[in-house]
Amino acid sequence: MGVLVVGSVALDSVITPFGSKKDILGGSATYAGIAASYFTDVSMVAVVGEDFPEEHTEFLRIKGIDTAGLRRVPGRTFRWKGKYEDNLNARTTLDTQLNVFAGFNPELAPGQRRCPYLFLGNIDPDLQRSVLGQMTDAKFVACDTMNMWIQNKRDSLMKMLERIDLLVVNDEEAWMLAGTPNVLQAARKIMEMGPKRLVIKRGEYGAILFGPRTQFCVPAFLIENVFDPTGAGDSFAGGLIGYLASSASLDEISFRKAVVYGTVMASYTVAEFGAKRLGELTFTEIEARYREFCKITLFEDFNKNNAVKFDLTPF
Amino acid sequence: MGVLVVGSVALDSVITPFGSKKDILGGSATYAGIAASYFTDVSMVAVVGEDFPEEHTEFLRIKGIDTAGLRRVPGRTFRWKGKYEDNLNARTTLDTQLNVFAGFNPELAPGQRRCPYLFLGNIDPDLQRSVLGQMTDAKFVACDTMNMWIQNKRDSLMKMLERIDLLVVNDEEAWMLAGTPNVLQAARKIMEMGPKRLVIKRGEYGAILFGPRTQFCVPAFLIENVFDPTGAGDSFAGGLIGYLASSASLDEISFRKAVVYGTVMASYTVAEFGAKRLGELTFTEIEARYREFCKITLFEDFNKNNAVKFDLTPF
Repeated sequence: MGVLVVGSVALDSVITPFGSKKDILGGSATYAGIAASYFTDVSMVAVVGEDFPEEHTEFLRIKGIDTAGLRRVPGRTFRWKGKYEDNLNARTTLDTQLNVFAGFNPELAPGQRRCPYLFLGNIDPDLQRSVLGQMTDAKFVACDTMNMWIQNKRDSLMKMLERIDLLVVNDEEAWMLAGTPNVLQAARKIMEMGPKRLVIKRGEYGAILFGPRTQFCVPAFLIENVFDPTGAGDSFAGGLIGYLASSASLDEISFRKAVVYGTVMASYTVAEFGAKRLGELTFTEIEARYREFCKITLFEDFNKNNAVKFDLTPF
Repeated sequence: MGVLVVGSVALDSVITPFGSKKDILGGSATYAGIAASYFTDVSMVAVVGEDFPEEHTEFLRIKGIDTAGLRRVPGRTFRWKGKYEDNLNARTTLDTQLNVFAGFNPELAPGQRRCPYLFLGNIDPDLQRSVLGQMTDAKFVACDTMNMWIQNKRDSLMKMLERIDLLVVNDEEAWMLAGTPNVLQAARKIMEMGPKRLVIKRGEYGAILFGPRTQFCVPAFLIENVFDPTGAGDSFAGGLIGYLASSASLDEISFRKAVVYGTVMASYTVAEFGAKRLGELTFTEIEARYREFCKITLFEDFNKNNAVKFDLTPF
């Protein structure tokens, strides 16, 4: 029950109030793939240039990720440079160099086409639909997008939305897509566009999962030392689909737990620059934080005979 | 086990994207008092001018609030005028006329001094301390404040914080008070200033309760048609202390439930201009929304034999 992750692999340069890093491993497929790899088998489809350090590919392989679909082609790797403001909620893109990513046109191998779970990272909706058209046994398809596609490729995006099981966007993207800032109104409009489920990510404020008749709200797992929010959203999505694939169930409770596992993965990502902390986790740490999250959010002891201990919460 | 509420009673003029209202009943004591009145006996201490409509006083009395401490003095009632932007998260104060509120110096009656639960709305910390000094049997004291007092009356506020059980502030006030935007770091610093517990309100994103060794995060209860956010924070605080007084317990689970009841009360306040919707509630409606909130936030069925039905959540 593996996950196929299609998206970008990038070399990011990041400036935060706590320091800066140049050309570190980034990209939507990287974060989503690593996050999912703790739960299930992951195959990655992406493109890099001749300058992509072999140690990064090796790092992904050590995480157990099948990198056969990580094509190396002539040219330079996709680069993104961004700067975060003091409170880390606002960021400015300083430079984007698509490089080899501009010619990305994913061709899936036969084994990849049969993958039951698919995560389409934030790439051109034309490419997302091309990938989807190659899948033969997809049981569950999740998809991300961004402001550029909502504005410039709306028709293609709409055709995409009709065919997917889950759309994952942040609150600004939801506003732009639906044309209303109210998150419930926006969710209702987006659900009418076709996706069976919708997650609206709200950064440090958490996330909301919408289903056909359900709503599930979670706060984020708060971190005392947030170093670099880059990749948090993709780590969230990767943890979510990774857990779903591992649970082999698509009922409401599985989706809710998947959102919490996504929350946990994102909380680790922001604790270090790039994918460093995310990449060095153990499953024991993930499970421990999941249990901490239960304690931090619980207010009704549904089993009156089994009182939950609150005094172990980490504050 | 009643609650004494000390704060402002105002005539608010509010402009939102959905319309505007002039000179409607507002103020911290109004919202907190009405919210608390659904749970316990409430006495209100505030000041109004000769122009304060008798119907407003009657409205508070109908809610069962003891208005003996609502003094009417020569002059005009405190007025506030504000405007909300499109997404309702940002607001601008257009005009503040303190009027009779400038001379507010609360003198408690003997019965009020013996009240076990005290909510000190957002007034000058000198006055808050004066009220606190008059209390003889206070079991629990909660207190609000704002940027003006944090900047201009910091010493007095600090002396205040050492003596209270709960401080309720929003995230900007927490940042200003602690000097750091990270909410966990800010909470830790504020807890060191003295309050036994702390709630950081985050508007439409929910709230966080901090105790000596505990942390509890909740999302807000989302509303499809938010009309007017004015008073949401005071309604939250009133619901919180009202529930605490009614439960007559100050353990962790009571505080957590109190935060959820506060969340519920705030969600009703924002659904109409002013205190209209808040004031016409039934306890049945409050309980129903509390149960809805349980369903919206639950992800672990702690009692495996008693599966919670998700399909009744309101989306």
